[in-house]
Amino acid sequence: MSVIRLKNPPSIVGCAAVVGKREHEGPLSDDFDLHDSTEKFGMDTWEKAESEMQRLTLNLALAKAKMRAGELDAIFAGDLMNQCVGSSYAAECSGRPFFGLYGACSTFAEGSVLGSLLVGNGTFGKCAVLASSHFCTAERQFRYPLEYGGQRTPTSQRTATAAGAFILAAEGNGPYIREVLPGTIVDMGITDINNMGAAMAPAAYRTITEYFESTGKSPKDFDLIVTGDLGKEGHSIICDFMKSAGYDMPTVYNDCGLMLYNTETQDMHAGGSGCGCSASVVAGHLMKRFEKSTLRDILYIATGALMSPASLQQGRSIPGIAHLVRICAERDKE
Amino acid sequence: MSVIRLKNPPSIVGCAAVVGKREHEGPLSDDFDLHDSTEKFGMDTWEKAESEMQRLTLNLALAKAKMRAGELDAIFAGDLMNQCVGSSYAAECSGRPFFGLYGACSTFAEGSVLGSLLVGNGTFGKCAVLASSHFCTAERQFRYPLEYGGQRTPTSQRTATAAGAFILAAEGNGPYIREVLPGTIVDMGITDINNMGAAMAPAAYRTITEYFESTGKSPKDFDLIVTGDLGKEGHSIICDFMKSAGYDMPTVYNDCGLMLYNTETQDMHAGGSGCGCSASVVAGHLMKRFEKSTLRDILYIATGALMSPASLQQGRSIPGIAHLVRICAERDKE
Repeated sequence: MSVIRLKNPPSIVGCAAVVGKREHEGPLSDDFDLHDSTEKFGMDTWEKAESEMQRLTLNLALAKAKMRAGELDAIFAGDLMNQCVGSSYAAECSGRPFFGLYGACSTFAEGSVLGSLLVGNGTFGKCAVLASSHFCTAERQFRYPLEYGGQRTPTSQRTATAAGAFILAAEGNGPYIREVLPGTIVDMGITDINNMGAAMAPAAYRTITEYFESTGKSPKDFDLIVTGDLGKEGHSIICDFMKSAGYDMPTVYNDCGLMLYNTETQDMHAGGSGCGCSASVVAGHLMKRFEKSTLRDILYIATGALMSPASLQQGRSIPGIAHLVRICAERDKE
Repeated sequence: MSVIRLKNPPSIVGCAAVVGKREHEGPLSDDFDLHDSTEKFGMDTWEKAESEMQRLTLNLALAKAKMRAGELDAIFAGDLMNQCVGSSYAAECSGRPFFGLYGACSTFAEGSVLGSLLVGNGTFGKCAVLASSHFCTAERQFRYPLEYGGQRTPTSQRTATAAGAFILAAEGNGPYIREVLPGTIVDMGITDINNMGAAMAPAAYRTITEYFESTGKSPKDFDLIVTGDLGKEGHSIICDFMKSAGYDMPTVYNDCGLMLYNTETQDMHAGGSGCGCSASVVAGHLMKRFEKSTLRDILYIATGALMSPASLQQGRSIPGIAHLVRICAERDKE
């Protein structure tokens, strides 16, 4: 596990974020490109709605990059639905080479790592990275039927109805993906599906400390360190762990699951989660902040909980993973 | 969509295949490294058994390559289980950077494409590609509970209990991955889950003809063209399609789903399928034939059916995909 510095850092030449009702009502509302408060996106099932949301996101990102789908050398995409059908139906019309990914909530970073490695070394000229999640498809698949109205625990997170897209290209005006650190699986024995933050935090801790140790950098070197989707519980675990490792995080550290909703007024328990949560926060909100130059150098670490409902029923613990992507306004910064 | 010729073709320095009872009873029995006729691999659930089978396969491939897991820069892995848990639990102990993939039965080729692109251009020195499937996990997840004993149609394929692994390295004595062609999604409107061959054949046809058109080669240039897992139905569709496009396939063409079982005596209907089917046939049987020099230049095209049980219940058709990998005994062959 070592940090990969991209010789020719790919530029994020297009980005888009599309969200549902609750995400639109949250504090980042203005930074998303589109929302549908019915969350159906014109479709008659939640599963089709998620695909359509992902397809819309890709098309918006392409439009903003002034590109046609035909110019893409590859699409890296994933979602939380069984057999990742959200992504395959979304990519169907594009007619472009397709790599289906499964990294749970880490999918957008997993795709960004693979896409930037392959654009960064000249294999591909341009590629798209896509991830989505939908509350209504995830809830009934991972937890209970929607109609059941199951009570949630304080540590539970809400799967965001959201999708995010990056278009990466060898040439562009930035921001640039400067370094990546692919994650390893870390399993600390957590078995509570309603406490995913705790299950994923050790993986994030491992990736972040590995990054600092091998680069010699520290939290103060960045405008923002943002994890994707540890929520309130995982956020506090990371702060504690990092403090005991000698790093002072809280000033520059935030979590996409805490940023997406107003946790005081929106009754979201420990915050947001799902592939679409960090995808939309990064491709929507954070890219807007890069545009305004209020951000110039960030670390984005997306975490995934790699269990299934069946594996939990069989008493297995939840393996976590965290992939790191460093995004910089400048191409050649140290 | 264009053929990518690897400047520094990675070498397959290790390979392994582990199978279940029926696969061991089939004609390729001697070419697999290990089998367990209970198909439990020492575990108490089918899901854990699949993970353990995949883990065993990785460890065997590493042992044959005289490597430790610690030398791997990345693991690319996938399976058919919901949320790809077969792979994440299998990779947990390795402690190596992990990329979860979902390409249904095309997963082993998808991983081989990504792995060889990243080793071939120097990003990674060594990586592992892994895929598995298990009849007992797939059947109850995609079709019916095992106890129900559902009658199968003549066009249905049996999900293989099998896993395959490649270890790819920048240096080695071959065989080499010389060219790759990542697939695009093709959906011709097939909705019958018991006829996956027909759903996936158009994607294979597209990838194969695209390869021949852009390289100027034809079937007679290869010792073998092998698809992963179209079965009897898809095999005959490909032969017909290719004939109408002016290519004579049958002499050099075979399908992993037809090779894995004795279709006359083993009552396997249209043949085998599942990520593990082509993974084990290629990493087991075909690699043995490379060793004996009875194969020197082949095209391996693995096809995936990217639907889910939920998407079929909602009346959606089955999107297919096919990734191509050219494997050569020589490093610099045209």
